[in-house]
Amino acid sequence: MNTLEYIKSLQTRASAALQTRLENSPYSARLGDAMHYAVHNGGKRIRPVLAYASAEAVGGTLADADSCACAVEMIHAYSLVHDDLPAMDDDKLRRGQATCHIKFDEATAILAGDALQTLAFEILAHPEENRDPALSLEMIETLAQASGWHGMVGGQSLDIEGAGKHIKEDDLILMHRLKTGALINASVKLGAISTGLASKDMLDSLEKFAECIGLAFQIKDDILDVEGVTEVLGKQQGKDQTLNKPTYPSILGMEGARTRMQALFDEGTQALSIFGKDAEKLQGIASFIIERKH
Amino acid sequence: MNTLEYIKSLQTRASAALQTRLENSPYSARLGDAMHYAVHNGGKRIRPVLAYASAEAVGGTLADADSCACAVEMIHAYSLVHDDLPAMDDDKLRRGQATCHIKFDEATAILAGDALQTLAFEILAHPEENRDPALSLEMIETLAQASGWHGMVGGQSLDIEGAGKHIKEDDLILMHRLKTGALINASVKLGAISTGLASKDMLDSLEKFAECIGLAFQIKDDILDVEGVTEVLGKQQGKDQTLNKPTYPSILGMEGARTRMQALFDEGTQALSIFGKDAEKLQGIASFIIERKH
Repeated sequence: MNTLEYIKSLQTRASAALQTRLENSPYSARLGDAMHYAVHNGGKRIRPVLAYASAEAVGGTLADADSCACAVEMIHAYSLVHDDLPAMDDDKLRRGQATCHIKFDEATAILAGDALQTLAFEILAHPEENRDPALSLEMIETLAQASGWHGMVGGQSLDIEGAGKHIKEDDLILMHRLKTGALINASVKLGAISTGLASKDMLDSLEKFAECIGLAFQIKDDILDVEGVTEVLGKQQGKDQTLNKPTYPSILGMEGARTRMQALFDEGTQALSIFGKDAEKLQGIASFIIERKH
Repeated sequence: MNTLEYIKSLQTRASAALQTRLENSPYSARLGDAMHYAVHNGGKRIRPVLAYASAEAVGGTLADADSCACAVEMIHAYSLVHDDLPAMDDDKLRRGQATCHIKFDEATAILAGDALQTLAFEILAHPEENRDPALSLEMIETLAQASGWHGMVGGQSLDIEGAGKHIKEDDLILMHRLKTGALINASVKLGAISTGLASKDMLDSLEKFAECIGLAFQIKDDILDVEGVTEVLGKQQGKDQTLNKPTYPSILGMEGARTRMQALFDEGTQALSIFGKDAEKLQGIASFIIERKH
């Protein structure tokens, strides 16, 4: 199986696992529909894919990582729903479809995001999902740290504060390390932790890999925002510029941004050397991330 | 120590415990400030008080319940911040102070709510907060179930759907059982679970108590909304009527609502009989809840 086929099989597995965990509709059908819409929106499932590949790299199975793959994607989906709100980025289109608050309404979108966050933690805590309480607890703590005030949400807040301001590269890196890097990092770590097979050395290597790839992912996003065409991206192109948000191309120039991305890719994949051939798939995913067209 | 003194001591303890857990400011100072503002807003700390009293009723200590007392209050605080948003109830005043999105801005309020939810789960998962992973996991699952799509957020969604509609008492009970009852119920259960001393019988009795008191609490809220004066309530009086939301007085009449509240109080306190004198404080808190003036 080549990398693209592997990624596709993991995307399919993630979508099916998410579907199963969203079947038990709540009393409020509208809320359930909005949560479903937010999760099944044609996303690339990068975070679940990383969790699955990481579980396999340390010698575990895909089944080990099903629950954390769903949890990280639910956190990601909730953050997009809230990010798109009029008070935040005010986006009407995501991946070619109406954003959640356009398809439903603002109140429903706020609640659907809230409930998706809760469900991420509920899934990790559910006795049927996991065998070892200590591992489950470690996964919950890792996910919470990555997605809360010292992680993703903290980065979103810095992003809003930084709009319209001239900031240094260090501040931009900090913002992205929190806003997108932390959850990508957590996805890789959770996949490894879920197996119960990850040593301290393995986790350290994976963390280094994830940190580099997370930043490379963000630089690619910024590059695509300048280069991409709205139809391919499925969202408004040049949005960052319109909002006057600082980006890598705006600070480093287009060529500088590309060079930085490649250097991060090299550093990240080198960190996987202790895994030998077992990390080939993770490396393939890293290539996919920096070569993607949207 | 009489009941009022006991409640006051628990309120003070809860505020101090919350303060400790909010000290580690994030990179985004604005986000940290908004979270702090949302939690320290002069609230009655009913949920932490119930958690503490429940821990003592089953023979545990107040220290056992510190982390869950903070977690339930953070969930409650986040839900108020999001509930007050313009797209939801559009409230400018809460407990006599500007609501979070008025004091800061809408985007910050959305993010502060999001981060408070995350922090609730992070606290329960933190190794320093708890000794037994299995108990911590049970607490996280209980809190997630109570606050997510099948609990609090589900109830908020039903509340929005029901505005302006004529609904039956059963539907109103369901909405409130989810919107406020589930988290009150979880507060009582978490306090008991946190001690590691709660038997199945104890948990069942506490659950019955909490279910009755949660509904009585909501009826009292509805009564106060009709009767209360804006200055005493610290929020706009008659707000439910303005929004045309169904309430107990609107369905049962004022006298019928009072009778129902008293019957629930009696049923709830009877459920505590297996605890004997150990439940006196919990009973006192129940009286406080239905006799409060705001």
